[in-house]
Amino acid sequence: MCNAKKWYLRLKWPSHNKAVELTSLLMSAVFQDVHVMIFIGFGFLMTFLKRYGFSSVGVNLLLAAFGLQWGLLMQGLWHLEDGKIKVNILKIINADFSTATVLISFGAVLGKTSPVQLLIMTIMEITIFSINEHLVANVLEANDVGASMIIHAFGAYFGLAVARVLYRPGLKNGHDNDGSVYHSDLFAMIGTVFLWMFWPSFNSAIAEPGFTQLTAVINTYLSLAACVLSAYAISSLVEHRGKLDMVHIQNATLAGGVAVGTCADMNIGPFGAMLIGLVAGIVSTLGFKYLTPILASKLGIQDTCGVHNLHGMPGILGGLAGIVAVALGKKKGGDAAMQAAALASSLGFALVGGVVTGLIMKLPFWGQPPDQNCYDDSIYWEVPEEEEEHEESLAHADHSKNKAEV
Amino acid sequence: MCNAKKWYLRLKWPSHNKAVELTSLLMSAVFQDVHVMIFIGFGFLMTFLKRYGFSSVGVNLLLAAFGLQWGLLMQGLWHLEDGKIKVNILKIINADFSTATVLISFGAVLGKTSPVQLLIMTIMEITIFSINEHLVANVLEANDVGASMIIHAFGAYFGLAVARVLYRPGLKNGHDNDGSVYHSDLFAMIGTVFLWMFWPSFNSAIAEPGFTQLTAVINTYLSLAACVLSAYAISSLVEHRGKLDMVHIQNATLAGGVAVGTCADMNIGPFGAMLIGLVAGIVSTLGFKYLTPILASKLGIQDTCGVHNLHGMPGILGGLAGIVAVALGKKKGGDAAMQAAALASSLGFALVGGVVTGLIMKLPFWGQPPDQNCYDDSIYWEVPEEEEEHEESLAHADHSKNKAEV
Amino acid sequence: MCNAKKWYLRLKWPSHNKAVELTSLLMSAVFQDVHVMIFIGFGFLMTFLKRYGFSSVGVNLLLAAFGLQWGLLMQGLWHLEDGKIKVNILKIINADFSTATVLISFGAVLGKTSPVQLLIMTIMEITIFSINEHLVANVLEANDVGASMIIHAFGAYFGLAVARVLYRPGLKNGHDNDGSVYHSDLFAMIGTVFLWMFWPSFNSAIAEPGFTQLTAVINTYLSLAACVLSAYAISSLVEHRGKLDMVHIQNATLAGGVAVGTCADMNIGPFGAMLIGLVAGIVSTLGFKYLTPILASKLGIQDTCGVHNLHGMPGILGGLAGIVAVALGKKKGGDAAMQAAALASSLGFALVGGVVTGLIMKLPFWGQPPDQNCYDDSIYWEVPEEEEEHEESLAHADHSKNKAEV
Repeated sequence: MCNAKKWYLRLKWPSHNKAVELTSLLMSAVFQDVHVMIFIGFGFLMTFLKRYGFSSVGVNLLLAAFGLQWGLLMQGLWHLEDGKIKVNILKIINADFSTATVLISFGAVLGKTSPVQLLIMTIMEITIFSINEHLVANVLEANDVGASMIIHAFGAYFGLAVARVLYRPGLKNGHDNDGSVYHSDLFAMIGTVFLWMFWPSFNSAIAEPGFTQLTAVINTYLSLAACVLSAYAISSLVEHRGKLDMVHIQNATLAGGVAVGTCADMNIGPFGAMLIGLVAGIVSTLGFKYLTPILASKLGIQDTCGVHNLHGMPGILGGLAGIVAVALGKKKGGDAAMQAAALASSLGFALVGGVVTGLIMKLPFWGQPPDQNCYDDSIYWEVPEEEEEHEESLAHADHSKNKAEV
Repeated sequence: MCNAKKWYLRLKWPSHNKAVELTSLLMSAVFQDVHVMIFIGFGFLMTFLKRYGFSSVGVNLLLAAFGLQWGLLMQGLWHLEDGKIKVNILKIINADFSTATVLISFGAVLGKTSPVQLLIMTIMEITIFSINEHLVANVLEANDVGASMIIHAFGAYFGLAVARVLYRPGLKNGHDNDGSVYHSDLFAMIGTVFLWMFWPSFNSAIAEPGFTQLTAVINTYLSLAACVLSAYAISSLVEHRGKLDMVHIQNATLAGGVAVGTCADMNIGPFGAMLIGLVAGIVSTLGFKYLTPILASKLGIQDTCGVHNLHGMPGILGGLAGIVAVALGKKKGGDAAMQAAALASSLGFALVGGVVTGLIMKLPFWGQPPDQNCYDDSIYWEVPEEEEEHEESLAHADHSKNKAEV
Repeated sequence: MCNAKKWYLRLKWPSHNKAVELTSLLMSAVFQDVHVMIFIGFGFLMTFLKRYGFSSVGVNLLLAAFGLQWGLLMQGLWHLEDGKIKVNILKIINADFSTATVLISFGAVLGKTSPVQLLIMTIMEITIFSINEHLVANVLEANDVGASMIIHAFGAYFGLAVARVLYRPGLKNGHDNDGSVYHSDLFAMIGTVFLWMFWPSFNSAIAEPGFTQLTAVINTYLSLAACVLSAYAISSLVEHRGKLDMVHIQNATLAGGVAVGTCADMNIGPFGAMLIGLVAGIVSTLGFKYLTPILASKLGIQDTCGVHNLHGMPGILGGLAGIVAVALGKKKGGDAAMQAAALASSLGFALVGGVVTGLIMKLPFWGQPPDQNCYDDSIYWEVPEEEEEHEESLAHADHSKNKAEV
């Protein structure tokens, strides 16, 4: 007769313990929401690129599937029980969380790396994430329930560091394929809206069940709602003739979810949550408009998706809000100095880890695409012919859309 | 030490009270389904317009995010506790419900209003919705668990009244951009299918937990299934050479969910539910085919999305079915006269409220687009260039697709 | 006063029985995930065809809505209670399961049949499925929690048998419309990713609640993750110049979910699950590359979606894995001979049932499209004009894209 308990940790599942069963049920629902954010949310958000949709969704799937297995291994080795790696719903949620860092960094270098380079980045980043996560959660014992610091800021600055190391002077003046078309912007909105809707689950996933978890859900919900308003307002204010920019609407409307992450389970109240969201929307939109071009031209950081504006700055904002909230006594047992240390740790590991990883990725063995083949699926995918009239147009006109054979 | 209970109502969360905890868990799952209907369902259903997809999804997000904050405020002021506005999952679900009325009305005027006009409509409509909702639920104590009357019929006739006030003679013969293309119809099907799948959650969200809620789920599920069959059958019957019309399949297949709303938690049985669905599908499809053109040409009501056929008539059908079902004793404690009064109230508030709101929206300060710029994202959005061959076509041919600068 | 209990079975819902209430809650969440797989997953996965998207999503909706009503009727007649058909959440889940067989078979004949033929196939297939399901579950008492045998293998070989009977010599050299374009491949990825994410719910839906259900979730999750890796690896290895093929990524990444189905609730451990997934990805991708063309040219089986590679072979693999696992004692009370009998039964019913159904579908009354009109929405749908430049291209060039009037 087989021993059913040998492989998986039951998350304390004696059938008389209803409180635990309720927790498990809720965690399963939360897991599913986080899973949708990782695979549909991130995957489709990056399909805005006119000729890189296959890679955006497809490589997202590859990195996340690979990353969650690596993440489970990492966590498992860290917490061996009887010399065995145990798997349960909480660990699966954490594995999805760890892949989020990779997908954020992927956004910074989107279109400019090969799948092999990204698989290496996955291994490195999840390992370094685990170290920082252990430090922040178990040593510093800082609060970061929605992971503004350990996932969003970490993933963004890690990716930006990699982007800096992999800087391409040849892309200084942009690239024809680095942009969207009408329907690719609509595909990206699928990602945006799914991320927006399920963020309350993301920020409450590891919160203490019960009232605290509910608090995280509602604070995130309100922060996101306020953020939408400021993102729309600023986008209209800064754009030519008051028009809205899809890049802002696809990304900056989510900044509130990132920025309230650290404080989500704290007693900041609806106005605190909405203030954080409002500020995040402003900062994010202004970042897309003014800062990203400066980062590229002055600092050599070419950030394809603008992750600095969605995950970087809002992540830091979340960390800072956490320091302030804890200092104001909004979290029982919190310590503002530990919050600050957690933020510093996350940024430190991200930057150093990103540079080291970037240097490894820069080795010439990994099939990095040349400049003219960036932002183009056709070097990694068999791409179907466009509609026949496109073929005729290619014959008629001089296009710089380059499908050079690799 | 901070007082964690100060801001949010805990929905009676003492940890020994499992019945309440179960209710809360279920309500969280139901909330998530309703949320997806509001943001993905409505948002993408309206992307069928070939050049208005950005506004459909993007302005949907804006109005819903704005509306749910306004809705929470409204509910909160209505039910102050110790002079404070309390927020809990039930109120969040109701806030999403109130935004549904706005999104339905948005469908009636889709393509013909500015975002500012719509924000004004949001404020007005949610306020008036709250008044009618309070009257129907607390004064008349009528049953309308799936809100056929207070959301669907209300939202539709409110929107149609606004459309009437904002009638545009210049659009009497249609508009080039008032139509779909192949892939925009596929985007819209994303909306259709998500709405179809999650409607049982919508109709059971505020039902009494337990058997009654389960009844609402199953009645809605069966009504929707039957409605699909009649929508396909009628669409094929009325169309040229027996072909199906995507407009019917995108919309009329949902009419069963609307029409069974009032009765969903009543003991109408599977055949009752399926009959309602069957009739709704027939009425809706015939409405799209024959009635919408008549409303435009004879009554000056230009209903872009045909909300009259999906929410208006099926909403009234739901109200009528509710009167009949209650009269037949299918709901303990029900009163057919109160059902009728609720329907009348919803229609009355909708029409009067819609006219007043339309008149305010008609004021010349709000940036309403001129006729030739209707159904066109490019007056409010930076729209990326289409594929290059489209540029060439513009050079070759005389198109009435107008991208005039605003 | 009405009797609320008359119509629906309450799934033993006395409010003091918390264990049952928890089960019902979980089953509702699981139902919703399965529902999304059926309507969004299958519906959009089949939109890869460049001119058949309307039918893929739309006819999917029709067949599923029709099929679940027929399935409820079938189950109900099978299990009459007091001469009445009872409906509850478990039966609704099983109704969705039965429609999955039809949608799998639809994939084999996609583009080559009329809606009427498919409605007939729905009636026949669900009936035959029910017979086999009863035999496997209640007579042989075999394990097949994720239905590798009774849904996937069954649906695939049923569909392949129908495809064989409806063989079209005129399509021996392919068809212009039997292929994808860039954005149709992205629409299909919506289907792929939703199927991938929710498969753990599908495989655990009818598992014994508690630890066993959790085991099924985790085994499926790991099998799918491993499968992605092998699908990507093999796709790159077999394709021209190491490029990835979207057909592989859309389909073969799901094979792990199919193949682990039978064993999902068994004590196979994470390595067992991952091994199954790894092998399934290899088998599936090689099938798409080498076997599908051979099936068409040598055996006269034209399998549009390659269901043999996603559901057929992985389904058999699942059945075989089940025989092995039970023989190794991984399931208490299992019997390897019964597992083998169940696999044989499923294949037998599928092939014989498929041939019989194919012969009925072959009768000339059902409006089967002629060869040149295959894979084309425009014979069944009013299809909007493409962008104007397409019109011009039609005028300029000689296209074989045939929109002949039917």
